Amino acid sequence: MSPARELEFWFDFGSPYAYLAALRLERLAAARELRIAWRSFLLGAIFHAQGWSDSPFNLYPAKGRYLWRDLERCSARLGLPFRRPSVFPRKGLLAARIACFHAQAPWLPDFVRAVYCANFEQDLDIAGTPVIGLCLAAAGADAGPIIEAAQSPESKEALRAQTEEAIRRGIFGAPSFMAGSELFWGNDRLEAALDWSAPAA
Amino acid sequence: MSPARELEFWFDFGSPYAYLAALRLERLAAARELRIAWRSFLLGAIFHAQGWSDSPFNLYPAKGRYLWRDLERCSARLGLPFRRPSVFPRKGLLAARIACFHAQAPWLPDFVRAVYCANFEQDLDIAGTPVIGLCLAAAGADAGPIIEAAQSPESKEALRAQTEEAIRRGIFGAPSFMAGSELFWGNDRLEAALDWSAPAA
Repeated sequence: MSPARELEFWFDFGSPYAYLAALRLERLAAARELRIAWRSFLLGAIFHAQGWSDSPFNLYPAKGRYLWRDLERCSARLGLPFRRPSVFPRKGLLAARIACFHAQAPWLPDFVRAVYCANFEQDLDIAGTPVIGLCLAAAGADAGPIIEAAQSPESKEALRAQTEEAIRRGIFGAPSFMAGSELFWGNDRLEAALDWSAPAA
Repeated sequence: MSPARELEFWFDFGSPYAYLAALRLERLAAARELRIAWRSFLLGAIFHAQGWSDSPFNLYPAKGRYLWRDLERCSARLGLPFRRPSVFPRKGLLAARIACFHAQAPWLPDFVRAVYCANFEQDLDIAGTPVIGLCLAAAGADAGPIIEAAQSPESKEALRAQTEEAIRRGIFGAPSFMAGSELFWGNDRLEAALDWSAPAA
């Protein structure tokens, strides 16, 4: 038997295309006996390094208008609910720190999905502690201590280091998938990334 | 019988993802009894209007590095040859004027494919008259008079007007597909655009 293969999922909680990938990811990977490594990072820090003060979808109006229509169509094709958030992009800092610090926790995938659903299905304020607390509870985690630990220097530093790793490895958008040094960008590339990591039987 | 349905293909000859779409387009559309309207435009003019002096793939190094690897993988998945052009993006002005002015000509689809192959399979200078002459000849067109007519004020104005129409209709990248007012962006959206225009039987 070969060792379990792994695909890294690099995500930012503000990215609607990462939502489309996050909700499908684990089921598709499991069908290929592929392990997912959940790697949260801050896309805003990467945009900032590229000289952008905001999401390119906000900076370029034609692209922004297109985005929401495209997401309606893509989510319909994938059979996923979708609601345009009333704030975009929402700040996923707290959720990203938690996801980074607890990447190995058994409740982590459920928490990630709960945060994405809060943002892109329920239009809830994922920047705030109340919604994140609900998402943790829904995933079966002990919300209070986890949220408190997210404010620790270690937790802040872990996410900072992971975002720097993303930049160092060539990541410039979300979602991104990495199979070793092979980078795939965008929900549109999920199938290609899966094929690369573990060809379908 | 319903009237023949149409999908507009908006393309720039410098775009490698438009190459991937252009070479597959007609066969996929024919299988659905869908007519293609070939609409050339100048993506550079749209980038310029967004404040970019060059292709975003040249402006953002991480995105540029990714581009060429992604194209290798995408072309392999689609079974298309691909060679990274030694000049990027190549100026498709002459070819775009010809494609715009002769959009209805029976040789036009073959000409468009020949120009894309020259750029992205053979690494030839599509900015120059010699290569465009060869592409016209390969498509069965009378190169001399067509190239001469491309320099006429009417030909220049036609492409300018078509590029303005692209901007007015919300196009911000290439390739784009339009089914009525429904815009699809990117080679990745070709299947969705076809499904929208003419659902598979």
